[in-house]
Order: sequence, then structure tokens, then C-alpha cells
Amino acid sequence: MNCSTLGIGLAGFGTVGSGVWNTLQRNGVLITDRTGGSVELAVTGILVRDPAKARATAGDVPQDLFTTDWRSLVGNPAVDIVVELIGGTTDAFELVAAALRAKKPVVTGNKALLAERGTELFALSKEMATPIHFEAAVAGGIPIIRSVQDSFVGNRLHSLVGIINGTSNYILQRMTEAGLDYPPALGEAQALGYAEADPALDVNGWDAAHKAILLATLAYGFSIDPEKVHVAGIEQVRPIDIAFAKQLGYVVKLLAVIREHADGAIELRVQPSFIPKNHILASVNGVFNAISVVGDAVGEALFYGRGAGQDPTASSVVADLVEAARALRHTAGHRGFLPYRDSGTLLPVEETETAYYVRFDVTDRPGVIAEVAKILAESGIGISGTHSPVNPEAPDAEFVDMVFLLHTCKFGKLQAALAQVEALDCINSAPVVFRIEKL
Amino acid sequence: MNCSTLGIGLAGFGTVGSGVWNTLQRNGVLITDRTGGSVELAVTGILVRDPAKARATAGDVPQDLFTTDWRSLVGNPAVDIVVELIGGTTDAFELVAAALRAKKPVVTGNKALLAERGTELFALSKEMATPIHFEAAVAGGIPIIRSVQDSFVGNRLHSLVGIINGTSNYILQRMTEAGLDYPPALGEAQALGYAEADPALDVNGWDAAHKAILLATLAYGFSIDPEKVHVAGIEQVRPIDIAFAKQLGYVVKLLAVIREHADGAIELRVQPSFIPKNHILASVNGVFNAISVVGDAVGEALFYGRGAGQDPTASSVVADLVEAARALRHTAGHRGFLPYRDSGTLLPVEETETAYYVRFDVTDRPGVIAEVAKILAESGIGISGTHSPVNPEAPDAEFVDMVFLLHTCKFGKLQAALAQVEALDCINSAPVVFRIEKL
Repeated sequence: MNCSTLGIGLAGFGTVGSGVWNTLQRNGVLITDRTGGSVELAVTGILVRDPAKARATAGDVPQDLFTTDWRSLVGNPAVDIVVELIGGTTDAFELVAAALRAKKPVVTGNKALLAERGTELFALSKEMATPIHFEAAVAGGIPIIRSVQDSFVGNRLHSLVGIINGTSNYILQRMTEAGLDYPPALGEAQALGYAEADPALDVNGWDAAHKAILLATLAYGFSIDPEKVHVAGIEQVRPIDIAFAKQLGYVVKLLAVIREHADGAIELRVQPSFIPKNHILASVNGVFNAISVVGDAVGEALFYGRGAGQDPTASSVVADLVEAARALRHTAGHRGFLPYRDSGTLLPVEETETAYYVRFDVTDRPGVIAEVAKILAESGIGISGTHSPVNPEAPDAEFVDMVFLLHTCKFGKLQAALAQVEALDCINSAPVVFRIEKL
Repeated sequence: MNCSTLGIGLAGFGTVGSGVWNTLQRNGVLITDRTGGSVELAVTGILVRDPAKARATAGDVPQDLFTTDWRSLVGNPAVDIVVELIGGTTDAFELVAAALRAKKPVVTGNKALLAERGTELFALSKEMATPIHFEAAVAGGIPIIRSVQDSFVGNRLHSLVGIINGTSNYILQRMTEAGLDYPPALGEAQALGYAEADPALDVNGWDAAHKAILLATLAYGFSIDPEKVHVAGIEQVRPIDIAFAKQLGYVVKLLAVIREHADGAIELRVQPSFIPKNHILASVNGVFNAISVVGDAVGEALFYGRGAGQDPTASSVVADLVEAARALRHTAGHRGFLPYRDSGTLLPVEETETAYYVRFDVTDRPGVIAEVAKILAESGIGISGTHSPVNPEAPDAEFVDMVFLLHTCKFGKLQAALAQVEALDCINSAPVVFRIEKL
């Protein structure tokens, strides 16, 4: 191990905070392996409001990690990186600012904080030469921040258009599929935990707007005043609108649209929109998010995944922690990929299992199906269907195609059976095999 | 400008090489801005086979950049980073190895080289503490390498399943849509430049397999012997198979499947597959690629985009160049995001343009449509349709919904017209506006 451990201060131990804890516990060794031994992370402090409650819900967390004083978390010499997950724009602001002033990199998922007060925080980040990472602030586990910032760094970005509020998207989907009116669809989302008790920011469009402001700032480089952004939510959507959209070939989605115009002006708006039902964004359902990015080099690229939730958001927080840790530990670092295991096991293809479609070229005579079916049965392979389509151009052809649909079995078993089938007189060529994937 | 320029040696100046040149010319200033002034890239040498031909086709390239000797390119003290785009696994191997030995980071899009000889090259990369970057080797402009390596570093990856050969995908799509047999569909792909004159690696599955081997190595950390990978191509697909799949609710795709089993064994295979027609991968058409990644934290995430071509591939090469340059120039670096422009222009929402769907709550009496239509006409806003659905539960209701579909116009013009409409006696509430997005 050529690394020394970096200490993480978790400010907030709710859904996402405990997800980060769990992910680091579960995959900490893997993370160290995958970074070539250069990154080892340990949680060295946790800020909570109520230590008694935290102790009750977090069985495996050492009690002495908890504190109720954010200043002591940020000031703790064992804390190298601060993760802000307390939400809001006041205490969170103080905490993030204090961490930056202490030259401790910050990882946050707080889109409201950065959209409303990012100008101040980024200025402080620059002054202190200490980064703020915020992959978790937009679209949960989807790596859209890093992709826009790093992967598309060589692109002039023409547009970013996306579905970036899962709660609204779930409500609209239920209104579309089940014909629900808005209040019961919202109630359902709340019952499932997809919407907060106070769902205002989700349904009025401002959660999506905060994310869109961050994306636009990333893509175009300047701070954007939230007051100048046009935002409409889904509260006014009625079943009649959805029915009408459907009749016209559209689907209703809450869409965030960011677009650069020829004169350099940036269009940025969030509102319920009709989008063509065949567009890939139209098939983004439930609490999933998707963002379509168009750049002058990359063309169109689309990112799709879970836009919220404990584990997906934790996935992004942990990625940012590794990024921050690498920068802190950077010496003569090797940032490219290296294999990190001497060997691993490749599953022999014979052991892989799917269902199959198999086509044979057969001589058309009575008994063919019976002969093939017998071999398959003796091999223990189930047949879910068989078909021998008549060639309309040659209905009396001597040689025909015959198709078998086979139940899931190991490929090795199939190969052995097919070798026997191939040896039959009536089979004229090697069978052609397609996998039937469940996905 | 707080940076000194880094020199790029481009080995190969075909489609992708000239795309990289063009992208750096077009967006060089933007790249420097977006990296906070820390990265300035300049091409300082170009390896070509035939300088006369290169001069003829590359009008704006200074002649003295060209060389036909790869040793002089790699040894050129003005070359800090080497981009390998010559293809193949012999000369390319020598060139990449020489660059690593000279401690010059390498950027390559050569999937065959890394899949066949990656073990040797990664060992050398480690020994020399000099990275190989290869985002361009898998799925063109889609940032799948960086996402798997960095964004999902905290995940145990359960599977990566994707369509990663655009040529095969185009051929299968044409067979599906136009009912073509394999040879004419291949011919069409060749005529459009989607398939090489020798399409073997594309259609026999090995191009996809090379990419899958790289993805599996990234995800699971060990080198994979290509000889142990099960690969089948699309040459044996017939219209009958596609028709049969359709009848069963499937679509035929050439699928790369990588999956970790509970015992740690890695399943890795490429073959024509039936996938459910409603799965998002089924709607990936033409030369597009898509990869679905499932991790224990992130859940399912999907990446979609152009899998090949000059500019998308150049986008990935340039991203890797910036990554390599940042590592070379890293001092007390700031790897987080910072706004890089003091200000920018947000397009006033009044200036944004789309078509619209507008719903009014109206008092149902003769003349309502005429009154609203008159205001819209006087405002210069075209109506593409209007509808007043009868409420089946109250067919004689006094208050009804009325819907207008409006042609594209500026939002400010719409707002002004709607203010007039709202003032009409027969209009009972503020109109509800949805954007109709073309996408």
C-alpha cells in the first residue's frame, strides 16, 4: 500500500450521508485497488443534529465519530475533505466557506446552495485554491458534471436538454399511464417516498432549475442569476393536456432547456413541454433522469440513470471524494488506467446461460421436428416454440429453414446437443444461434 | 495566461487525426478558458506516410510539422504527449512503447492494440509511471472509459451491456426496416462510408469484442486473453431471423455482454442477440452506440452517442489530451470547476421561441374562439389547431377548457397576446402554457 489514509468529514447523516458511509464500508478496498493503491478513505467525523437518533439508526458507526458542532468537524485535523449534505443555503454556506478557508476540498450535492450562492463560493474556492466538487448535485448517479467539464472539454456545447427532476417525471408518468389527476399522482409519489412532505421545489420546477443553472454555468463558464431564469412547474398540468398531447403524438415532460445561440446568448428555461413520443427522452420514465448534450465535436450524447436516491447519489459523492483525494495525494501520480489484479477468472462460454433462438437449414421431410426435438429432450433442453416458415416463392422447396426457441440453459449443453443435431441426415448446415437476452 | 504550451505529436493524420487538428484549431482558446488557463495545447509534429498527400489535403497545416519517421516524432523535444492514430498492432505497438519509455503520455484510440497487447503496454506504463489514455478506443465520443474508471470508482460493477459496433448496428437496422438481406445491407453501409472496404472486424464481432475486452479490463482490473472470448458476428443473420424476432416482440442487435457472477467469474461475450423491443437498447439505431452499466451503488446508467466518426472520436482524444496535460502541468492545481468568464448573456425568456399548447378556462358561449383567434391573429401568431373537448360528465357545463396549438413565435409575443386574451370576459383564469419542443 503506497498511500496514507485521507479523512472524510461527513456533514449530514441522512439518506445520502449514510449511503456514503455504507458505500465506503462495502467498497473501500475495491476503491483503493481501482486507484492503484493511491486512495484510501476513512470517515473521521460525522455531523448530526441528534446523536442519540444517529446512534439508534447507524449500528456500525463508532460512536465517537459523531459531533453536533460543524466547526469542530471542519476544524478536526483528522478531516481532510468535507462532504456537505446538510442542505439549505445558510448553515451549509457557512460550513462550505469555512472548509474552503481551511483549504479542505468540499464535496457537495447541494444544488440550491451552488445555484443560489455559487458565485461567492466559487470565488472563495479560487482564492483558496481549493476545489468544490458537486457531481451529486445534478442527476444523482449520472456522471453529467464530469462529462461536461472534462470529457467534453474540447467541445463548444450547443445545447443540454434534459429531464432532471425525477419526482415531476414520476407524477407526469402516472398521470399519463393511469389517467390520474395531479393531486392523486402527487399523493402517490409522496406515499412512495419520491416526493418530500413539502414537494414545492420538485413540482414548481425550481429543483430542476437549480440543476440547469449549474449545468449552464459549467458549460458556458459564467455565474447565472436565478432570478433571471424562467421556471414553470407541473402543478398546472391536467389530464386533458396529457390526453391532447398523446393525440398529437407527444408526451408531456418537465424539460430543462439550455441552448447557446449564434450571438453567444444562453437560453435557459424549465417548463412542462410536449416532446415527440419517438424521441429517446420521451421514454424516460419514473424517477429516472436523462440529459441530451449536443457538442460541435461529439454530436449528440445522452446520459440516462437514477436521478436521486441514497445509493446513486452516494456513488457520485464517492467519485468526487476519490477525485479530491487524488488531487491532495498527487505526487508523481499516474492518472491513467492500470490493471490492478494479476489475474481474474473469465467464465467459460460453456457456463454462460441465456435462452436461445436456433435456426437450421433442413431437408423438408416428415419426422424432422421429431428427430431434433428428441435430441433436445434427451439433452434436457426445453423447447418453447418451433416454426418452419414456408417460403412463399418456393412453397414446395426441398430445403427449408426451421427455427427452435429454447429455454434458458448453459451454452455448453446447447453446443453438445447442436453437435448431435448437426449430425442428422436431414440437417444441411451448421445451426445459427442467437441469444435471447432478458436485460 | 498562467500556463506554458504543451506540444502534441499526432501519429497518423487520417480521419481522426485531422479531426483532432481541426478541433484544436477551432476550440483551442475555449479549452484553455475551460481549464482555467492551465492547459494550452499545440500540435508540434505530425507523422504521415506520404507528406505530399498530407500537404494536399491539409491546407492550413504548417508544412514543417510533417514527418515520415515515427522515431523522430516521439523523440522530438517539442512533443510532450503522443497521440497514436496509425492503427494496427505492430508499428503502433513500437511507437506507443517508445513514447512510454521516453516518459511521454500516450493518447490512443486503438482498441485492437490495447485488447491484443495491452498487458505488455500497461506493464510498461506502470514501470515508466506514464499513462496511456484511451477514451477514443471505445464508443467514439461517449465518455464510457472515464465514467467506468472515475465516476463509478465507488461501485462494484455488476454488468456492462452494449451496442458498441455502429457498422453492425446500421446493417441490422436496414435489414429490420427495409427487409434487406445481409449482402445488400452491407453494401449500403459500405457505400455510405460506415463500413470499411474490408468490413471483417466490424461484422465478425471482433471490433466490438476488442472494446468489450477493454471495458472488462477497466471494470474488473485484470488483463483478458482475447482467445478466451466468445465472439460471433452478424454475417449469419437472415431476414427470417429478424422477422421471427419481431413476431416475438424482440429486436436483433449485436450485443456485447460483460457480467460479474457471484463467484467473481467474469462473463464476456459478443453475439447477435434478441432483446425486448421495449428496452431502451432496442431503440439505438444507425451508427449510434449505447452502453448500459449496472453498479451496486449507481443502479442502471445508460450512455448513448455516436460510436465512431471523425469529430466524436476527436472529442474523446482531446479530452484525453487535456487530462494528460493537466497531469503533466500539475503543481498546486485546482481540479474542481471554476467559472471562467466574468459574465455572459442570458437570453431573455421573451426572446425564446418554440411552438405552444395553450389551455384556457372559458365560459362556453358562441364567439369565444373568434375573439381569442382575433387577438392571436392581430399579434401575428399562427394557430395550427384549436379544440374544446366536451366533458362527458357535464356536457352542458358553462365553463369548459379550450385548447389552442400555436405556431412557433417568440415567448414575449405570446405573453403579450395572452395578456389581452386573459382580459376577455369569457376567459376565467390565467392561460396554461406548454412548450412544444422539436428536439
